[in-house]
Amino acid sequence: MCRWAAYLGQPIFLEDIVSRPAHSLIRQSHGAMRCHTPVNADGFGLAWYGERPEPGLYRDVMPAWSDPNLRSLVAQVRSGLFMAHVRASTGTATSRNNCHPFTVGRWCFMHNGQFGGYDGFRRDADVQITDEFYPHRKGATDSEALFLIALGEGLEQDPKAAMERAAGRLADLAMRRGTAPYVRLTAAFSDGQRLYAIRYASDEQAPTLYHRWSASRGGRAVVSEPLETDEDDWQEVPQGSFCIFEGEGVQISPFCPVRQARAA
Amino acid sequence: MCRWAAYLGQPIFLEDIVSRPAHSLIRQSHGAMRCHTPVNADGFGLAWYGERPEPGLYRDVMPAWSDPNLRSLVAQVRSGLFMAHVRASTGTATSRNNCHPFTVGRWCFMHNGQFGGYDGFRRDADVQITDEFYPHRKGATDSEALFLIALGEGLEQDPKAAMERAAGRLADLAMRRGTAPYVRLTAAFSDGQRLYAIRYASDEQAPTLYHRWSASRGGRAVVSEPLETDEDDWQEVPQGSFCIFEGEGVQISPFCPVRQARAA
Amino acid sequence: MCRWAAYLGQPIFLEDIVSRPAHSLIRQSHGAMRCHTPVNADGFGLAWYGERPEPGLYRDVMPAWSDPNLRSLVAQVRSGLFMAHVRASTGTATSRNNCHPFTVGRWCFMHNGQFGGYDGFRRDADVQITDEFYPHRKGATDSEALFLIALGEGLEQDPKAAMERAAGRLADLAMRRGTAPYVRLTAAFSDGQRLYAIRYASDEQAPTLYHRWSASRGGRAVVSEPLETDEDDWQEVPQGSFCIFEGEGVQISPFCPVRQARAA
Amino acid sequence: MCRWAAYLGQPIFLEDIVSRPAHSLIRQSHGAMRCHTPVNADGFGLAWYGERPEPGLYRDVMPAWSDPNLRSLVAQVRSGLFMAHVRASTGTATSRNNCHPFTVGRWCFMHNGQFGGYDGFRRDADVQITDEFYPHRKGATDSEALFLIALGEGLEQDPKAAMERAAGRLADLAMRRGTAPYVRLTAAFSDGQRLYAIRYASDEQAPTLYHRWSASRGGRAVVSEPLETDEDDWQEVPQGSFCIFEGEGVQISPFCPVRQARAA
Repeated sequence: MCRWAAYLGQPIFLEDIVSRPAHSLIRQSHGAMRCHTPVNADGFGLAWYGERPEPGLYRDVMPAWSDPNLRSLVAQVRSGLFMAHVRASTGTATSRNNCHPFTVGRWCFMHNGQFGGYDGFRRDADVQITDEFYPHRKGATDSEALFLIALGEGLEQDPKAAMERAAGRLADLAMRRGTAPYVRLTAAFSDGQRLYAIRYASDEQAPTLYHRWSASRGGRAVVSEPLETDEDDWQEVPQGSFCIFEGEGVQISPFCPVRQARAA
Repeated sequence: MCRWAAYLGQPIFLEDIVSRPAHSLIRQSHGAMRCHTPVNADGFGLAWYGERPEPGLYRDVMPAWSDPNLRSLVAQVRSGLFMAHVRASTGTATSRNNCHPFTVGRWCFMHNGQFGGYDGFRRDADVQITDEFYPHRKGATDSEALFLIALGEGLEQDPKAAMERAAGRLADLAMRRGTAPYVRLTAAFSDGQRLYAIRYASDEQAPTLYHRWSASRGGRAVVSEPLETDEDDWQEVPQGSFCIFEGEGVQISPFCPVRQARAA
Repeated sequence: MCRWAAYLGQPIFLEDIVSRPAHSLIRQSHGAMRCHTPVNADGFGLAWYGERPEPGLYRDVMPAWSDPNLRSLVAQVRSGLFMAHVRASTGTATSRNNCHPFTVGRWCFMHNGQFGGYDGFRRDADVQITDEFYPHRKGATDSEALFLIALGEGLEQDPKAAMERAAGRLADLAMRRGTAPYVRLTAAFSDGQRLYAIRYASDEQAPTLYHRWSASRGGRAVVSEPLETDEDDWQEVPQGSFCIFEGEGVQISPFCPVRQARAA
Repeated sequence: MCRWAAYLGQPIFLEDIVSRPAHSLIRQSHGAMRCHTPVNADGFGLAWYGERPEPGLYRDVMPAWSDPNLRSLVAQVRSGLFMAHVRASTGTATSRNNCHPFTVGRWCFMHNGQFGGYDGFRRDADVQITDEFYPHRKGATDSEALFLIALGEGLEQDPKAAMERAAGRLADLAMRRGTAPYVRLTAAFSDGQRLYAIRYASDEQAPTLYHRWSASRGGRAVVSEPLETDEDDWQEVPQGSFCIFEGEGVQISPFCPVRQARAA
């Protein structure tokens, strides 16, 4: 289990999400409250959109709380769309290439959860990545595989359908060759315009997902757990949801991974 | 607060102390039980005596639990005298040079505790290090300063007296210019022959210190907290003690930092 | 291009190969003389056989010349069979998982060279790794792929044939989908008993490979370039060779990658 | 010897100095041409002024050419005043705290050169740092010491005089207790408004220093060696100079370290 936070709205310093709130993401890196692993110290990452179509990316293997580069970066960089992640490995190595977010072109993606028994079917998962996106396979996580498979399934054209097909492919593998719980998936991703999020689990025990609009700030935070413990206006996203955040708007629709034809 | 473990006896694989026990040092790196900071993930280190008079030294800034080099090393290296440390920073940066143990020539040293308000009198602490040992000042911790001051006070000739004088110098500074609690000190050090340990605090709340002789193994573990939670034969060292471990023997005498003449 | 050195014989301190010779591997990391890339500073690694069947492994991403852990380790560890590698990336990221040697069970492997245009057919290369060994796929290099494919081809049973089939599979891919030069391959590997080496290229411009028996030391060094510039008794291995080093003996036979049936 | 580059002018992406020019700083990290150490791979650093009075700081221990974080950062961040440095250690360890630039409050500083025999008088150098700035002493380099001593000498009030006094203090020590050449010093520093540079040596063999105004860009680069090998309009700063760059203007005056009264 990992912890993450994303933001969409008027540009703010990244630290306003990452390190300054009372229960900021960095605070959560050593004391998360709504997941089984309170310590999320197996690396961290940051992707932000600035003046270019492609996001900036900063990832490292130290605990987020002890990296002075991270502290400086989030105090300097201001962005209207960014995401940050602190990792608790579910098995794969602590290396920069296994840290979230992952980026390809304009897209970035981060994830909390796992496909059950992934180590046993990793080769089959990798095969689902198309040649076009295989050069972007740098690490060994199921998260990066999901992202790259989704890109091959047409993330650019139809983000929700592509993610439903990609998650379906990995769900198929987990059910055939993995172990229960087959799918636990809470993810956020973006093309630099909209912010998307998913909350799903095959066993209805999906990792938590919240969002909150701040009128004073003019922006929305989307998080795996609330950034302030004394604010009661965080909205929980129901399980089995696909969210589109754009401007002030929120669209939530059902998310349902598509079992593949050949799995029939 | 940090956690550490040392061993003296028949050569064993380092993993028999570092990673294999139920409450091994690596386990303690994310779940220590007898200190205020359960997470000790700001770097780690290992010093071991092999075929040379000088110890080997391996330190890095990742959490101990996630470093494959450490895992491999402790499975390969066998030693009859070694020490290992997992760090929870009390302020100074996470960097290899701030990780314990510290080594100079045949000597190695590690520490759990702090001198209160050290940041405010660090310059005066550094000045206490003699020219001879100043080139060994690589980092910025109070622990490394204590070790280097002790070397200048004659650690080679009289370890206990040298440590009493060195701790006294820093205690003086803490009392004059720092903050309470002035001294919290549980340390281990060695010249490659004997293993020494100290448990001391200016306020009688010294960090814990235990040791246990294993007849089956033919060796003694000296630790900040027991390596097994279900073994009841760990002996606690009283506060204000200086311990000499040599062969099967244990000598414990009072440890009392010496206030400096010029402090009068 | 990378540089590497291996040793088989009476146990010696690793530093006798890695850091002490006038043109030691560490020296070669910033001033190699017989390859196109004099600087080999994209990480390094060390595998050595000690008291266990599996080798120890130490790899990191700094230049070899600046890592104090490496310096200490090679001064402490003594082994009768080990290999060391300094890396100059041919494209894949600088990460520990992309550093040589690679290990699986008793086996370790390291490589200098490349399969031309590998980035364009990496997915097809990964598919050649069998399910059994796919969990060991940690990084993204062609070198690790070659090793894991060879394990699936029966490295355990017939090292030479397995490597000829594995190199043949990747040569097929390079010729069909990559770019010339298709294969440049100088590798060393071991099961903890024998030391094997290969020197091969599809265009007869194979990276250099030398070995030298030291009677005084009672062991043999096998290297990508000589460790001393003033010793004239280094023997160059001819191109297209497979070498078995065991005890004092050397067997050299032709090495010829096997084109796969389905490539016909 | 290290290599560095600084920029003052209309905001540009950092990559326009750091990585895109034909002989960019990153290119110089493995192939510098105007210094004794062509390889500058012992860490790197970046300080830039953005929306806050304090500069951002990013430093790491890998070679600059292999860090994807650096590549991403310099492509995203735009600044009108920044400095970057690639390090070739003259003795002290490769650690983030020994990487340039160094920052304190609004100030940042970087350096190429050394005080001869510094290791032998490091304690006396540290003592020159006043209590006010001692908490900023994180590493062990002579460069950081020079910067902190200058801050104590009034860098804020009179940059040139403060640097002349600080360099004088260290020059005194080098001449009394170090080795020739006593001072080799080419440095850049800034308070976020002006960019300052020094070129000086006790033996008139000061490291090179150039600057060049780009009308098309509306800014000035100040560098240890030209960023393009085919541009002939780089201006060399004479030895013994102190430079103030502000807007389009350049003021160059003699720089002469002040011997301390007590050295008489």
